[in-house]
Amino acid sequence: MPATPLTGIFPPLVTPLRDRDSLDVEGFERLTEHVLAGGVHGLFLLGTTGEGPSLSWRLKAEVVERGCRQAAGRVPVMVGVTDPSFADALRLAERAAAAGADAVVIAPPYYLPLGQPELAGYVERFAAASPLPVLLYHIPSLTGVGFSPDTVRRLLDSPKVIGLKDSGRDMTYQHTVRRITVARPDFSVLVGPEELLGEAILLGADGGMCGGANMVPRLYVDLYDAAKAGRLDRVRELHGRVIAVSDAIYSVGAGGSAYFRGLKCALACLGLCDDLPAEPYERFRPAEREEIRRRLRQVGLLAN
Amino acid sequence: MPATPLTGIFPPLVTPLRDRDSLDVEGFERLTEHVLAGGVHGLFLLGTTGEGPSLSWRLKAEVVERGCRQAAGRVPVMVGVTDPSFADALRLAERAAAAGADAVVIAPPYYLPLGQPELAGYVERFAAASPLPVLLYHIPSLTGVGFSPDTVRRLLDSPKVIGLKDSGRDMTYQHTVRRITVARPDFSVLVGPEELLGEAILLGADGGMCGGANMVPRLYVDLYDAAKAGRLDRVRELHGRVIAVSDAIYSVGAGGSAYFRGLKCALACLGLCDDLPAEPYERFRPAEREEIRRRLRQVGLLAN
Amino acid sequence: MPATPLTGIFPPLVTPLRDRDSLDVEGFERLTEHVLAGGVHGLFLLGTTGEGPSLSWRLKAEVVERGCRQAAGRVPVMVGVTDPSFADALRLAERAAAAGADAVVIAPPYYLPLGQPELAGYVERFAAASPLPVLLYHIPSLTGVGFSPDTVRRLLDSPKVIGLKDSGRDMTYQHTVRRITVARPDFSVLVGPEELLGEAILLGADGGMCGGANMVPRLYVDLYDAAKAGRLDRVRELHGRVIAVSDAIYSVGAGGSAYFRGLKCALACLGLCDDLPAEPYERFRPAEREEIRRRLRQVGLLAN
Amino acid sequence: MPATPLTGIFPPLVTPLRDRDSLDVEGFERLTEHVLAGGVHGLFLLGTTGEGPSLSWRLKAEVVERGCRQAAGRVPVMVGVTDPSFADALRLAERAAAAGADAVVIAPPYYLPLGQPELAGYVERFAAASPLPVLLYHIPSLTGVGFSPDTVRRLLDSPKVIGLKDSGRDMTYQHTVRRITVARPDFSVLVGPEELLGEAILLGADGGMCGGANMVPRLYVDLYDAAKAGRLDRVRELHGRVIAVSDAIYSVGAGGSAYFRGLKCALACLGLCDDLPAEPYERFRPAEREEIRRRLRQVGLLAN
Repeated sequence: MPATPLTGIFPPLVTPLRDRDSLDVEGFERLTEHVLAGGVHGLFLLGTTGEGPSLSWRLKAEVVERGCRQAAGRVPVMVGVTDPSFADALRLAERAAAAGADAVVIAPPYYLPLGQPELAGYVERFAAASPLPVLLYHIPSLTGVGFSPDTVRRLLDSPKVIGLKDSGRDMTYQHTVRRITVARPDFSVLVGPEELLGEAILLGADGGMCGGANMVPRLYVDLYDAAKAGRLDRVRELHGRVIAVSDAIYSVGAGGSAYFRGLKCALACLGLCDDLPAEPYERFRPAEREEIRRRLRQVGLLAN
Repeated sequence: MPATPLTGIFPPLVTPLRDRDSLDVEGFERLTEHVLAGGVHGLFLLGTTGEGPSLSWRLKAEVVERGCRQAAGRVPVMVGVTDPSFADALRLAERAAAAGADAVVIAPPYYLPLGQPELAGYVERFAAASPLPVLLYHIPSLTGVGFSPDTVRRLLDSPKVIGLKDSGRDMTYQHTVRRITVARPDFSVLVGPEELLGEAILLGADGGMCGGANMVPRLYVDLYDAAKAGRLDRVRELHGRVIAVSDAIYSVGAGGSAYFRGLKCALACLGLCDDLPAEPYERFRPAEREEIRRRLRQVGLLAN
Repeated sequence: MPATPLTGIFPPLVTPLRDRDSLDVEGFERLTEHVLAGGVHGLFLLGTTGEGPSLSWRLKAEVVERGCRQAAGRVPVMVGVTDPSFADALRLAERAAAAGADAVVIAPPYYLPLGQPELAGYVERFAAASPLPVLLYHIPSLTGVGFSPDTVRRLLDSPKVIGLKDSGRDMTYQHTVRRITVARPDFSVLVGPEELLGEAILLGADGGMCGGANMVPRLYVDLYDAAKAGRLDRVRELHGRVIAVSDAIYSVGAGGSAYFRGLKCALACLGLCDDLPAEPYERFRPAEREEIRRRLRQVGLLAN
Repeated sequence: MPATPLTGIFPPLVTPLRDRDSLDVEGFERLTEHVLAGGVHGLFLLGTTGEGPSLSWRLKAEVVERGCRQAAGRVPVMVGVTDPSFADALRLAERAAAAGADAVVIAPPYYLPLGQPELAGYVERFAAASPLPVLLYHIPSLTGVGFSPDTVRRLLDSPKVIGLKDSGRDMTYQHTVRRITVARPDFSVLVGPEELLGEAILLGADGGMCGGANMVPRLYVDLYDAAKAGRLDRVRELHGRVIAVSDAIYSVGAGGSAYFRGLKCALACLGLCDDLPAEPYERFRPAEREEIRRRLRQVGLLAN
């Protein structure tokens, strides 16, 4: 159990695919080295950006093992656990422990409707059984229910619960949660959406899990450092670049999958890995891909 | 592939548990025989009522195998496939085929946001790969997205798509879907909520998947028969009993799990199986259990 | 106060407009006579279909006065009251009483979030102050909150609360409500969506408020009569026509306004009134209008 | 039309009531002087915090007239316009202009479902007809629909649209909107939730409409000043106090009305005005009121 909170930038690593159920191994290794070279402070495997819930059990296990092997102890590795079955969720945590991961990030079971007491009890039982420390995955837009402040307060009594990933987009929630968790100095609050990284760090969060760090890790590391140092002008400049990247890359194509497909397509344009998304999504078509290339040039991520 | 649609009452079989990850085998067999003795026309394993999404892969496989073995060809068996991973969903369909099941009922992947064209493409690819015919599981309250009428129309071109389970509670949707699917006489529209069974059959649906049939299968079979025969007075009487059972048994305890826990507790009170729900839920406490007993007596399902 | 419930077909009268804030008086009178000639049992002014919430206070008062004068006691008149301000809602009820209306249909205040006890208290105070009997307007998709079964039960103690308009599209709710209100024989349950009229009447509802009755009142009156008489074959036939009209006319144009604009455009094509919708909507364009004409011919409402 | 954007703290003034439909005139004047003495930069009448949508037309007109008279030109006055009827909304804007207000803040009509093009057209027509400049009221949780970035971009072509109040709680939206509106230096982005004031100003927003400024205006003015000056340590300290006030005062009592009722009760405890909320809400009971007093002491707003 860490005595200090997890801090810094933990990119939610994209899962490059060769086909529906096999990993683009070279792309995965290249991407991992790319983010590590950019100075990130850890890895987050099988998160939402990594399309974790869409991958088969077999592929999830492979990602965990290859990710830990590739990290090789250079940085901590966190593993997203989003299986609606308790037993299978625990099985993945055990696999992650065996592979050398440092923590799991557990989402509420997201099919059946769930009350807060049920959610709290679930996480208490999971944390008690888990071989690894546990962070809470707060992402109510996808799981239907998030961790209410009272539930967070109750879970502070579980010493293996060591943090919360806040992907809720509502900073009022995060401020309340930080106020509650101040009593646990080892508890880490990490912000999900990269567009909120600047303000989260300025006001006291411990780090961020920024999808854009798959493309350009240094930008988010620099923003984290500037915010930690209270260099406000630099924060504003880098924050502006983060918003520009986000507005450009995540809005091609319609609907809620624009983020995933845009990010994966950009990684392909940058030569990092294949752009095949997991089912049920399809690759961008040539016109959309060309638009992504155009925008990457526009925001300075691709040379002419 | 059946030339005629699936018709009649297919109880979404409750999954009795001995503990978190093991089946109450005797309860499962007893329950199966109980519903078959009540005249049901088939079984639906691993649906929402069966807590399918909450069970481990191992336990799902066991339920499928034991369920098919117990049915022993007496009635058709359908298997709910709700895994958000395509590969694991297909793996379960293959297991179901090997065990002798007759069809799978496939839900939209329910974690990431999904557009209708993506959903249609997903099901087309799944149906093409599946060894078993496929019914669509329309339950937007839990999966976030349902099958729009246009998507249903498109999927009629997939001959392996043979039906739809409508658990949407909006009969205007069902009427539109039946109007669309009239061109495919082998296509089966089955209603989910038992409170809608009477009207659905009166107006042309093919059958129902009624959770209450776990407790008292004959009631739903009788209602189905009366509605098929157009015996309106009898329909009204039996429909009234169905609503009375529903109002009594599914409203003890707070929140969205009242249905599951109430049903499972009632089955325990009726001596059919254990009342342990799957994670993340907990058993009813003694006071709630006593209230269920009281209500079972009130609606005439339990003798004094 | 009526000793018997309101029964039959009460078309939610469309409000024909000449421009943004003036009534198409001739169209309004023509439309009123058209539905009365079709045998409807009453009128419902200023409902959702009548775009009540979008009209100015002045125009609402004019509609109420002209509507009551035109009805001239031939049928009962109900008035929709959807003002989020208690005082203005009451003022409209008083105006309706002065004009000779028979009842108001009151929606929950729909801007601020509202709990069930607050909603119940609000309606109790409103009913106590209202000069006219009150029906509950259950339309949670637009008001955010509906009347829970427990709230309906509590409001049965207010003798001036004499009915509920169920526009919730969830017939399981309606069945539960009818079971609760059986203790008040003067209490009227009226179904909103015309697609549910057949089954609602077959299973015991008292009537319907069918938007399509603006176009072709006789169809809905006939369906009501057939369902009341238990003539099941006739119900199925007329129900099929209702669904055909609904699928054809309410699905031209995108988004949630397709219903309003389609209905108003159809009324214009039928020569009944202007097709100008209230703000914030715009009239259908020529191509959409031509499509409505084509569909009206297809479902037999317009001669070639 | 102002050449520079509206900047600073504009408290959404609470509307003190004597009874259901009459203003607590003394409380209103006292409250107005209280916030002005605290250094606020303007007033926002009839917003959500002011329970604008719940007030009668008559009372709204009175609030506008008394508010403008009391401000007496010392600070700009904005008026919330949330009437779902275009004509009545415009009528209120005209009344506001006649009373000497400086701008209106217009919400999307919030009863019927609305698409973005319809919303944009609505606001264009409203702005063209309005005698006062218009700010957009972005509060999708209450109006169902908000102003998408593309709609904001389109509305920049309307010179009378001079700002946006962002009450959406999603700062990623605000960052995108600020990036779009940078081309209009006179365009003002004001943040609604006071818990987000610090970060909003630090990263470039123009001001805030903080409900808590009714109680303790100086706190929010100080935070605004500190953030403008880039004094990060001071920002963190004051932000911490803002969160403490928010967590303490807005969470007594259940449900969505805890904010309104808590705030109004606190104002009563501070001796500023009556605590009667507008319908459909009821005053806090003695125990809840005592709890508010206790918490006011805890956060240092009430002496022992």
